[in-house]
Amino acid sequence: MARMEQAIKDMVDMFLEYANGDGKLNKDELKNMIQKEVQNPELKAKLGAVDFDKAMERMDKNRDGEIDFKEFLKCMSCMAKCYYHKKTGKGKECEEK
Amino acid sequence: MARMEQAIKDMVDMFLEYANGDGKLNKDELKNMIQKEVQNPELKAKLGAVDFDKAMERMDKNRDGEIDFKEFLKCMSCMAKCYYHKKTGKGKECEEK
Repeated sequence: MARMEQAIKDMVDMFLEYANGDGKLNKDELKNMIQKEVQNPELKAKLGAVDFDKAMERMDKNRDGEIDFKEFLKCMSCMAKCYYHKKTGKGKECEEK
Repeated sequence: MARMEQAIKDMVDMFLEYANGDGKLNKDELKNMIQKEVQNPELKAKLGAVDFDKAMERMDKNRDGEIDFKEFLKCMSCMAKCYYHKKTGKGKECEEK
């Protein structure tokens, strides 16, 4: 499958798998997703040190205590911008906190 | 590579490849990307019928005539929401126009 379609399909399928049927990720489901879907040691160490309460707070724009698909896509975009910055030096640097 | 990393890597690599070094996609580069990176017949037919001038207008938020990485990610998120809606019936339906 071509990359554009694969990336779109993977983002949707990942979310649906870990959101466990209710269409939202709670903190444990988000943690479980990141532990399983991130293998790169450097990224894993960075994300492993993340304060998940803070991360949830930043991602949970509508303050319902869970991450819906729209909020999840924002998180994916943020990580993509960090990787883009790392690769090109352009765009916004990642906020490590 | 795990799906989350692969999706992020593919979105960045695709953009950089088709943006040809200047960090922006012009209309021809966008068309070339979609022709090469979308193989699904149904999606290809849909996107093939798209008025690229209109699509550029909608994607080009800062009105500089080209698509930067941030605008490209918004487009990817929009397509992911369409696929999510198609798969679950939830979320926003795609605007076909």
